[in-house]
Amino acid sequence: MPYDLWYWPSIPGRGEFVRLVLEAGHIAYRDRAREEGEEALMKDLGARGPRGPYAPPYLVDGDFVIAQAPHICAWLAEKHQLASGDMATDLWLIQLQLTIADAVAEMHNVHHPVALMATYEEQKAEAARAAEGFRRDRIPKFLNYFERALDGRNWFAGSKWTYADLSLFQLVEGLRYAFPRRMAAIEKDVPHVAALRDRVAALPELHDYFASDRRIAFNEDGIFRHYPELDGD
Amino acid sequence: MPYDLWYWPSIPGRGEFVRLVLEAGHIAYRDRAREEGEEALMKDLGARGPRGPYAPPYLVDGDFVIAQAPHICAWLAEKHQLASGDMATDLWLIQLQLTIADAVAEMHNVHHPVALMATYEEQKAEAARAAEGFRRDRIPKFLNYFERALDGRNWFAGSKWTYADLSLFQLVEGLRYAFPRRMAAIEKDVPHVAALRDRVAALPELHDYFASDRRIAFNEDGIFRHYPELDGD
Repeated sequence: MPYDLWYWPSIPGRGEFVRLVLEAGHIAYRDRAREEGEEALMKDLGARGPRGPYAPPYLVDGDFVIAQAPHICAWLAEKHQLASGDMATDLWLIQLQLTIADAVAEMHNVHHPVALMATYEEQKAEAARAAEGFRRDRIPKFLNYFERALDGRNWFAGSKWTYADLSLFQLVEGLRYAFPRRMAAIEKDVPHVAALRDRVAALPELHDYFASDRRIAFNEDGIFRHYPELDGD
Repeated sequence: MPYDLWYWPSIPGRGEFVRLVLEAGHIAYRDRAREEGEEALMKDLGARGPRGPYAPPYLVDGDFVIAQAPHICAWLAEKHQLASGDMATDLWLIQLQLTIADAVAEMHNVHHPVALMATYEEQKAEAARAAEGFRRDRIPKFLNYFERALDGRNWFAGSKWTYADLSLFQLVEGLRYAFPRRMAAIEKDVPHVAALRDRVAALPELHDYFASDRRIAFNEDGIFRHYPELDGD
């Protein structure tokens, strides 16, 4: 039985971190809201009981439902032997994944700093101020942390990719999309992060996926948004 | 050997979610930065290698280090038989904990919406706008989710408290401290959440802790801050 993945159908968002694990791991799944639309997602989410998710993405396997992107990734990795197999390393991968999730949340906050339910256009002045600190302080802090964590290796866990590598790729891709000028200025400081990004982009396991329309392009309804006025060196 | 807990010594913050598990579980630990000060924390954090934490809190057990509050709580629960013992339930508890962490991050964003490295006073106008939506939309959304998740039970996992219950208690305490008017207006809509808060407050396991100076009071350097101008019905 393939898994059911439920996530907003028009953005990569947090769903993409899960999708990359499913695709790279060749794990069968149906991308339900992409097949059936956003209304089907709202309906499914609304019909879930007390253990239903707070928000998409969530993954369904018969009666079992699991939500929160980092948690889904770690669970899939454990179940499908895509983690390291070493307990201490697997626990560390979860830490990395949670820190990537923190970066993603801060990224979203840049274009929605004061009103989650309103549009970017309604908070442009505040977003400009939020972007300044995010560009200057936060992007380097996160990327330097991952650079140090890689410690010169090809992959976080050493010999093979794990979900944390796939997710760091997606974070770098998203940051490049949102802040091309800033990323061009600082990527030289994190050469192993940049090389990992290239290594994931070239993974044979993901070749078909990246060429398919299952891979959703970044856009201005998502978490990583390109607003030129928010970018800068 | 007691664990070493490292967290900012003057605020409850994210460290308190871990501390509650250690205290309620009667797990021996040393609260290192409270004993040795913030400089000792900065020094310890700076000396950690490639697998060092991104940020406090982190817990040290010999050579093993684990960071990210929800991850530490889940790990402690597993190791010290403080989770439910049922796999599906334990996975769900992690989801709840990650959602509590999301609420905590949004809470911090209210008083620091546009400049994480600056003070509240430097972003009061933006904070006022952020607080409006947080009060109106986000607090009820989070609390209603936990109310539904409790499904009329005393504890999330049924017969005994787990770390998710302790953490929901701390979230409610923090929200009451930060937004007393708003919480007074809406707590009647989430009676099981409020009752769970009372049940944790009365736990014999935590009696000595709550009476001790190990329990740090909320204050305006922390995540849950009381600025009367940000509160409202």
